Amino acid sequence: MTGRAREVIAGADCVIGNGTYLDQVASLLTGKEVIRSSMGKEVDRARKAVELACSRSVAVVSGGDPGVYGMASIVLEVLEHSGLAIPVEVVPGVTAATAAASRLGSPLSGDFVVISLSDLLTPREEIERRLELAFRMKVPVVLYNPRSRGRKDHLAAALSLAARHLPPETPVGFVKNAYREGEQAAVTTLGSARERIGEVDMHATVIIGGHGSRIWKRGGDADGIITPRGYETKYLY
Amino acid sequence: MTGRAREVIAGADCVIGNGTYLDQVASLLTGKEVIRSSMGKEVDRARKAVELACSRSVAVVSGGDPGVYGMASIVLEVLEHSGLAIPVEVVPGVTAATAAASRLGSPLSGDFVVISLSDLLTPREEIERRLELAFRMKVPVVLYNPRSRGRKDHLAAALSLAARHLPPETPVGFVKNAYREGEQAAVTTLGSARERIGEVDMHATVIIGGHGSRIWKRGGDADGIITPRGYETKYLY
Repeated sequence: MTGRAREVIAGADCVIGNGTYLDQVASLLTGKEVIRSSMGKEVDRARKAVELACSRSVAVVSGGDPGVYGMASIVLEVLEHSGLAIPVEVVPGVTAATAAASRLGSPLSGDFVVISLSDLLTPREEIERRLELAFRMKVPVVLYNPRSRGRKDHLAAALSLAARHLPPETPVGFVKNAYREGEQAAVTTLGSARERIGEVDMHATVIIGGHGSRIWKRGGDADGIITPRGYETKYLY
Repeated sequence: MTGRAREVIAGADCVIGNGTYLDQVASLLTGKEVIRSSMGKEVDRARKAVELACSRSVAVVSGGDPGVYGMASIVLEVLEHSGLAIPVEVVPGVTAATAAASRLGSPLSGDFVVISLSDLLTPREEIERRLELAFRMKVPVVLYNPRSRGRKDHLAAALSLAARHLPPETPVGFVKNAYREGEQAAVTTLGSARERIGEVDMHATVIIGGHGSRIWKRGGDADGIITPRGYETKYLY
C-alpha cells in the first residue's frame, strides 16, 4: 500500500468498498463510517459514494490499482452523469500484474500485455481475439480473473491459444493471493501448465512468458521466471 | 511509495541507484552507504550490488516498479551468473502506466498493453511489429520512453501506426513526471496529437486510448480520459 493511499483513507469521513478489501485496511477504519458492499454491486457502490461525497469526504477502496479492473472508472462515470462538481482523486496502487511478477522474479521486465479472462463485461469472442494478437506479440501476457466457478475452461483455452504461438518450454507462473494471506507462487511451462489448472482460482494471476522468457534458477529456492531486457546482447556478465 | 519499499530501504546497509531516484528517497538515506550510479551503467550497478550483498544488506532503487523497465531483471541475472546463494526480494511498486493513468482519470480500466519506444535494447522493427499488433487489439496502449534527444521521430511513427487502426477522436494522454516535481498532464486526440509531440520528453508516459475510450469531462477542470469497463451495457446510471 502506498503512503498516499494510507493518507487518503485516514483523512476520509466514510470508507466504502468490498468487504475483502475493507478487512485488509481494518486498522485505518477506527471512528469512520464504513460501508461494506458486495461483489457485483459496483454500480450501486459508485452511486452511494457520489451521494455521500456531496456532504462528506469519501474513500472508495479497491484492491491493487483502482484504475485496473477496479472502481475508478465506474466512480468517474457516475460522477460525470450526476453533473455534480465534486473534486475526485484516483490514487494509484500496485496492480496484480507487478505484485505477482515480483513474487516470480522478473517475468515482465519490459513490454507486456494485461488481459482479463472474465466475460461478465467483455464477450468471450472479443477476449479471444485480443489474446490471439497478444500472443503473436510474443511478449509476456498477464491474465487477470483467470478462472472462477462459472468459467472453468477459459484458462485452458487461453493456454491452448498461447501454445500456437510460443514453444512448450515457455515459462508460466501462477501466483495466488500476492502479498496477502495464503500467498502461493508456482512456476511451470506452457507444455505442462494444463495439468495444473486446478490450482488456479479467482484470487490468482497467471503470467505466460514471451519470447526470451526463461526459468530463473534461484539458489536453493523454487524456480522463478526471468525475461531478460537484452543487456546480454551488449554486455558480458 | 509502498510501506514495504520504505521498510526495505530503511533496513539496508547500502543503497545503490541512479541519482534521480536516490534524491527522491534522500530522507531515508541518513547513516547509510550510498552509491550513486549513472544512466546506462545498469550492468555495473547490478554487479556492484551483488558484490556488496556478499557481506551486507543492499537495496537497489528503481523508479516506478523495478520489474518493469527497472533494475530487477539485471540484478537477478547477475546474481544467477555469480552462483552465489544470496537471498533477494523484488519489491513491487506503482509503475508509470498506472501512475500516469490515475492523473488522467481512468484511461486503462481493463485490458491494456505496455510498450517502450526505446530501441537501445530492442530493435526498432521489433518495436513496430509489437505496436501494430497492440493497436489491432484496440485496447489502450501505454508508451514508456516515448521520446528522447536521440529518438525524436519514434513517437510520431507510433501515432501514425495507431491512426491506421483507431479513429481520430481516440483520446491520447501525455503525463510528464507523474507524482514527481514538475508534474504535467495533457489530453488530446489521435487526430491532433502530432502537433503536440514537442511537449513529450523522456520523463513522459503516453497513453493512447482503445475502442471505447473517450474524453472524460471533469467539472471545471481540464479534460481527462475514461475507458468504461462496460457496466453501461448492463446497468442504467
